[in-house]
Amino acid sequence: MTDPLPSGSTIGILGGGQLGRMLAMAAARLGYRTHIFEPGAAPAADVAHDWTQAPYDDAEALARFAAACDVITYEFENIPAPALDILSADTPLFPSRRALEVSQDRLTEKTFLKDIGLRVAPFAAVSAADDLPGALAETGVPAILKTRRFGYDGKGQARVMAEAEAEAALASLQGAPAIAEGFIDFSMEISVIAARAQDGSVSAFDPGQNVHSDGILATTTVPAPIPASLRTDAVLLASRILTELNYVGVMGVELFVTPTGLVVNEIAPRVHNSGHWTQAGCAVDQFEQHIRAVTGWPLGNGERHANVVMENLIGDDVDRAPALAAEPGVQVHLYGKAETRPGRKMGHVNRVTGPAD
Amino acid sequence: MTDPLPSGSTIGILGGGQLGRMLAMAAARLGYRTHIFEPGAAPAADVAHDWTQAPYDDAEALARFAAACDVITYEFENIPAPALDILSADTPLFPSRRALEVSQDRLTEKTFLKDIGLRVAPFAAVSAADDLPGALAETGVPAILKTRRFGYDGKGQARVMAEAEAEAALASLQGAPAIAEGFIDFSMEISVIAARAQDGSVSAFDPGQNVHSDGILATTTVPAPIPASLRTDAVLLASRILTELNYVGVMGVELFVTPTGLVVNEIAPRVHNSGHWTQAGCAVDQFEQHIRAVTGWPLGNGERHANVVMENLIGDDVDRAPALAAEPGVQVHLYGKAETRPGRKMGHVNRVTGPAD
Repeated sequence: MTDPLPSGSTIGILGGGQLGRMLAMAAARLGYRTHIFEPGAAPAADVAHDWTQAPYDDAEALARFAAACDVITYEFENIPAPALDILSADTPLFPSRRALEVSQDRLTEKTFLKDIGLRVAPFAAVSAADDLPGALAETGVPAILKTRRFGYDGKGQARVMAEAEAEAALASLQGAPAIAEGFIDFSMEISVIAARAQDGSVSAFDPGQNVHSDGILATTTVPAPIPASLRTDAVLLASRILTELNYVGVMGVELFVTPTGLVVNEIAPRVHNSGHWTQAGCAVDQFEQHIRAVTGWPLGNGERHANVVMENLIGDDVDRAPALAAEPGVQVHLYGKAETRPGRKMGHVNRVTGPAD
Repeated sequence: MTDPLPSGSTIGILGGGQLGRMLAMAAARLGYRTHIFEPGAAPAADVAHDWTQAPYDDAEALARFAAACDVITYEFENIPAPALDILSADTPLFPSRRALEVSQDRLTEKTFLKDIGLRVAPFAAVSAADDLPGALAETGVPAILKTRRFGYDGKGQARVMAEAEAEAALASLQGAPAIAEGFIDFSMEISVIAARAQDGSVSAFDPGQNVHSDGILATTTVPAPIPASLRTDAVLLASRILTELNYVGVMGVELFVTPTGLVVNEIAPRVHNSGHWTQAGCAVDQFEQHIRAVTGWPLGNGERHANVVMENLIGDDVDRAPALAAEPGVQVHLYGKAETRPGRKMGHVNRVTGPAD
């Protein structure tokens, strides 16, 4: 085993939201300092040693930031390529650019997943209205149109319930390059949070069941109510993706459970909302796991010692936090955001429902 | 239930060591900012929003610090009284001065514990050599001389194995006011980490077994191998102390297990090294519990969902951290201290040994 990055080193984190904040705290637990790069408000900066507040096209700020960091990682995947050029010139960046490139574009991502033999929903590129008939022939109807880039929490999506609606749906995406995806007949969505270390070792957490509300994750429950064989499939499949990408860090893999097996919905090259339960259920949570990976520590083995339900606090839900905190086994995480807005993730709670089944 | 201190408020923490650091992270998890007051090096400042680096006799710095905080708490009990006068003039301070006064002085502490009906080792004040014969008559020989104030991790102590050694032992304390304590015939040391909220509710964690090495805590193991009746006694006794002091916050209570029941060794009006296991074994750890108490949140119920062994990393032990991290169920906490020194607490690991018994 090679030595990890020395204690006291600085980890640069691109993005200053709640994921960056929880990464910064995990880094501190391993004795590291953190430096946040974030153009806007940065709740993560409250727990970081430094904060560079600058836009992603400020080449000088990017270069100064990179020079101050021993390693750079990120909490979101939509980092512009020219910024990545500057950031990764002299400082290691994990996960690698390849992982970012694959996941920044839904078409690239689906193509990659299909090429390595995994099942995905039928899909086709849609650059313009002319492409619609061919694309819908591929996917079937109903289908869903999604922008290829910059979508999250259900944004940049439009449903096509009948072929006649297709042009209007595409127009609602305002000319952004898109893909059409066929509907999948699934019984539930699960996700696997998996990690790969610099030495190539892989470790996955137990799959959780996700429930969404208005396109935003509402709850994740572990264990997911699926047979052991599917758990194994999910973990193997996630490992396959990490290994194919020569990935270093934590990845979130969303999967549909269908009568004929697992279908990959999407991957996120970062810690993931559906992995927050690990804070209450595992000795090493997803944030520490990610920091371990990018700094060269051995990975935790992912073992789960408690059953947990994670619930997001969206918008005014945050007002329920004190009442929730009074319930047995409830761990509260608030993100320190200055303003409560509808649809905004303000915090989450992890409810320990018992020792691990 | 009254509302807790609003998210975004600032918690002042006196002391910038590892306890302050872990308190600051717990405060951040509840959406608070922290401001550290620490004259020396401050690992806690790495995860805090602000740091006042000034001595405890800098009245102006203390007043500015207090004015910037919505509530003040501390990680250590030896805060000078004149500083407390300034700090608590206009800002709430938890735990209260009464708790500090009681625990700053071993004589006051033992007298308090005895007066509320708890068992302590026989003790007597020793101001000068003349007091030794009477004091040792009270305590018996062997005995141990301890400075009344500023002792920790076995510092400021001298054993008296025979009466003839007493004057030399006292001289080794360099004229500091002291107490003599009789030896207790105990089978093990345990401790209870208990909390009391502003509304008077009390919650305790499961007692852990402590093992010391060279006067410094080496490991804490939960569950402690004691009968259920003793666990109940320990928790009731801790509750008694908190309630008598009208205490708000987390307290560590060290107890000796003897053939005739529990004897109180000492109390610490703060989060305690022997409570670090709660980070891996409970939904709400001792740090969050303390922050909940001082900010008016409801307390966690203290339930333990895993068996845990906490091991301190003292001095060069920290070099073992990467190897320990590779073992199953091991959670690493490093304190970000710049320099490794013999006897210095550099970090700890929590090893989850299974779901709760």
